[in-house]
Amino acid sequence: MPKERLYIFDTTLRDGAQTAGIEFSLEDKISIAGLLEQLGVDYIEGGYPGANPVDTEFFETRRTKKAKFTAFGMTKRAGRSAANDPGIQALLNSRADATCFVAKTWDHQVKVALEISLEDNLENLRDTVAAAVVAGKEALIDCEHFFDGFKANPDYALSCVKTALDAGARWVVLCDTNGGTMPSEIRDIVGKVLAVAPGDHLGIHAHDDTGQAVANTLAAIEAGVRQIQGTLNGIGERCGNANLITIIPTLVLKPLFADRFETNIDAARLERLTQISRAFDDRLNRAPQRQSPYVGASAFATKAGIHASALLKDFSTYEHVPPESVGNERSIMVSQQAGKSNLLTALARHDIILAKDDPRLEKLLATVKEREARGYSYDGADASFAVLAHEVLGTLPSYFTVENYRASVERRHNAQGEEITVTEAVVKIRVAGELLMSVAEGNGPVNALDLAMRKDLGKYSARIEDLELVDFKVRILDGGTGAVTRVLVESRDGTGERWYTIGVSPNIIDASFEALYESITYKLLKTEAAQGTTEKVA
Amino acid sequence: MPKERLYIFDTTLRDGAQTAGIEFSLEDKISIAGLLEQLGVDYIEGGYPGANPVDTEFFETRRTKKAKFTAFGMTKRAGRSAANDPGIQALLNSRADATCFVAKTWDHQVKVALEISLEDNLENLRDTVAAAVVAGKEALIDCEHFFDGFKANPDYALSCVKTALDAGARWVVLCDTNGGTMPSEIRDIVGKVLAVAPGDHLGIHAHDDTGQAVANTLAAIEAGVRQIQGTLNGIGERCGNANLITIIPTLVLKPLFADRFETNIDAARLERLTQISRAFDDRLNRAPQRQSPYVGASAFATKAGIHASALLKDFSTYEHVPPESVGNERSIMVSQQAGKSNLLTALARHDIILAKDDPRLEKLLATVKEREARGYSYDGADASFAVLAHEVLGTLPSYFTVENYRASVERRHNAQGEEITVTEAVVKIRVAGELLMSVAEGNGPVNALDLAMRKDLGKYSARIEDLELVDFKVRILDGGTGAVTRVLVESRDGTGERWYTIGVSPNIIDASFEALYESITYKLLKTEAAQGTTEKVA
Repeated sequence: MPKERLYIFDTTLRDGAQTAGIEFSLEDKISIAGLLEQLGVDYIEGGYPGANPVDTEFFETRRTKKAKFTAFGMTKRAGRSAANDPGIQALLNSRADATCFVAKTWDHQVKVALEISLEDNLENLRDTVAAAVVAGKEALIDCEHFFDGFKANPDYALSCVKTALDAGARWVVLCDTNGGTMPSEIRDIVGKVLAVAPGDHLGIHAHDDTGQAVANTLAAIEAGVRQIQGTLNGIGERCGNANLITIIPTLVLKPLFADRFETNIDAARLERLTQISRAFDDRLNRAPQRQSPYVGASAFATKAGIHASALLKDFSTYEHVPPESVGNERSIMVSQQAGKSNLLTALARHDIILAKDDPRLEKLLATVKEREARGYSYDGADASFAVLAHEVLGTLPSYFTVENYRASVERRHNAQGEEITVTEAVVKIRVAGELLMSVAEGNGPVNALDLAMRKDLGKYSARIEDLELVDFKVRILDGGTGAVTRVLVESRDGTGERWYTIGVSPNIIDASFEALYESITYKLLKTEAAQGTTEKVA
Repeated sequence: MPKERLYIFDTTLRDGAQTAGIEFSLEDKISIAGLLEQLGVDYIEGGYPGANPVDTEFFETRRTKKAKFTAFGMTKRAGRSAANDPGIQALLNSRADATCFVAKTWDHQVKVALEISLEDNLENLRDTVAAAVVAGKEALIDCEHFFDGFKANPDYALSCVKTALDAGARWVVLCDTNGGTMPSEIRDIVGKVLAVAPGDHLGIHAHDDTGQAVANTLAAIEAGVRQIQGTLNGIGERCGNANLITIIPTLVLKPLFADRFETNIDAARLERLTQISRAFDDRLNRAPQRQSPYVGASAFATKAGIHASALLKDFSTYEHVPPESVGNERSIMVSQQAGKSNLLTALARHDIILAKDDPRLEKLLATVKEREARGYSYDGADASFAVLAHEVLGTLPSYFTVENYRASVERRHNAQGEEITVTEAVVKIRVAGELLMSVAEGNGPVNALDLAMRKDLGKYSARIEDLELVDFKVRILDGGTGAVTRVLVESRDGTGERWYTIGVSPNIIDASFEALYESITYKLLKTEAAQGTTEKVA
């Protein structure tokens, strides 16, 4: 039986722009449209030409190669024709392939918000769609508040759908605008809409206000719609839109959908999913969510001893899909609950291959447990684990040792009577017998120590040039300013790899220094491995 | 018609402990159990006594008042009786009210992972439940991989359910262990389980690997189960467990569920939901997710434009439930109007009553917005808000001023060649014209500054004697050691009141000092109010 085609409509650049704290520049929009084409969505809704300068400029050029470049706007106002409505004309004159107009379909809203008659609203819809079709655009209608409208007045909501289709709309999209509808309600109502409209002309637009935007979208597909709207990583107003990064792999990989439907996204494209999701977060300058379905750093992570050993026997038991299928990877973490099998897997990740009965394994496990009892947590600090493992196994090169360091912060008034803070750090290290002493000022004591330590690493200086600290987290383990402090440092280098190191001490400065020191050590280990063991470090 | 009772089973402290990067201390567990009792869940699964020292100690005392205190473990091993299985006995001898044992119900897993016969597995299940019942514990069985098992061998999966119930289990919980099951499959399979087991003895345990843990849980309720398992904020292995913070308001507020079911959580408890969710993230030292359904800072946020003005006409149009019902608040990001009324409410909380048209309100609003743009966040630092408000309104007494301070940390070798760290701080303050200078050593620079500042506050010393710092949190706002640092300090005094102050600076020491200074100022304001305005501060 041939599969039915599902169409994926991305609204990251339009509805996603309603997200609190997100403001796209023109460059952002161009770059994100590129990611969306890599992903392979069918429609890219780029914004609202005429509504603001960025969107207007974005629509002056066709920004997509394959995907339908779609402009968003409102249906025409009452009392004028679409031909005389400058809002409509901005869309029709843009370089868009398709135009998506939002229309009210809840009788209460037509009366209260638009203050026009129900029939006038239908006429606005009809004339707008007809104008788009005449202008050669594919026409879509977003039915705002469709499900609330249907519950209040099903006949009117359905007459909006029929009017749009009769006027020539390619798609009528049923929107759960305030996000409060349950999947079983979506299923029931879509079933009733099918009485007046074919499913391959219906779309779904869900919001995540009850945490069910993904489920509502999938329920609508099961009920009959064939277009789905959503955004990258589920950005959007309030709790966000349906997350396409979550929905797409379910459609491609789960037999319930994959056996019946096809999309433009094949297995090869799906393997880019994790990278696209993370590149999008990078563009927004925010940390990817570790727990995101399919693409999160934790999505295929296992901690417990029992699960990990079962996992090694048979991956299918604790993985609902293979991590490689979405470009993600399996991670078996080291922690207090770890057994030897976790440890072997973790070591293998750093190319350390030990036999299961190697006595050093026992020693490493004991060291990990002892340190975790003191507040270390290696499941979030894999680079520190690697350094510790090399140390315990006796394979850590002696790159450099720290003789001593000092950091001071002084708040005082300067000669002009202004309050200033002066922060300074001095670090003395020994590299290959040579004592190197550096001093640096910084924004704070940790920043100053970081700058001082990296200022001169002797013969290793060139190898850490592209090392960059990305994030720095502090947690107090038992409360109060006198308690034990855990510091987690995230680093990155020119290859794009990110790694995490940890430090624990009652003194926040010592804890930070330890994490910084281990980050540098890891970077040196890493570059040594990349250069191969044959090359002698000069 | 009387409503059916739904039971809420929280597994934050057990399955939630599988989350990558989360390691609970005993204090964490005690504090989180307190939050769960405030929320009103029926069962609190606290961990696995006997498996690690923290869990064992946690179960040495009954840690709940009303909720059933539940211990987790594995069904007995083959080849010995439950009475001779130390794992089982650890649970039965603990102070738990109820015990939840995980059993395999997927035939493939029984053979491959346990390497025992299908009948032996049933016998393990039967004997374990019977032993728990004899020991006076309520018995629950978690059916691991139930849905995968049912698809592979429905008869065997059902025989596990029947065996557990026949042996006296109060609940049999159907687990979607690897999180890959779709809501429509959950609905179908639960329907078939109902043929052998009553719904009021069935539970659902869902994971979020396809972003549908909430929907799967709700689908299972609609299909007939009456116990739901989940965690606070959806923590848990891989992509997390079903998020109870999302599910609970849907059950309490949405007619589809609220008309048919009741839980232990009434409207008054529901109003604490946002605060509980955020307190939990605070305990984990992580930023609450802004987009979380119901409780996120953006959950009821509307950005500029058409939606905001429609919202002001009629809140129901863009809010699926009233934000107050879950203890959250509406935020209209461009509306000065909304800002002012929020501000008046916050001021009233500190007994500062202003008229709506008081011009100082405009000034305070502008100051708050300007400071929030720089990284302050008064949401979680109400004491700092009170100090700021008094300052802007001109009602802050001049208790003391800080002339300057200095902190230094030095790591070096002592005469014995041991590494030591010496931390010292000096603070100069002026109280009523008198210059007071104090020096203190501490575990770290912030601890030393705290001790030095509080050492001598002149005439105010007696008033801060019972001030205690409870917690200290650091968050980096844009990443890297050179970024802006936000410090949140939690304080407490002899009355038991806790308050939060905030400091923001590129320098962690300055940010910490600001938060410490404001905590002392708030304490002085508070004792002054307690003494009444008639008493003149000497």
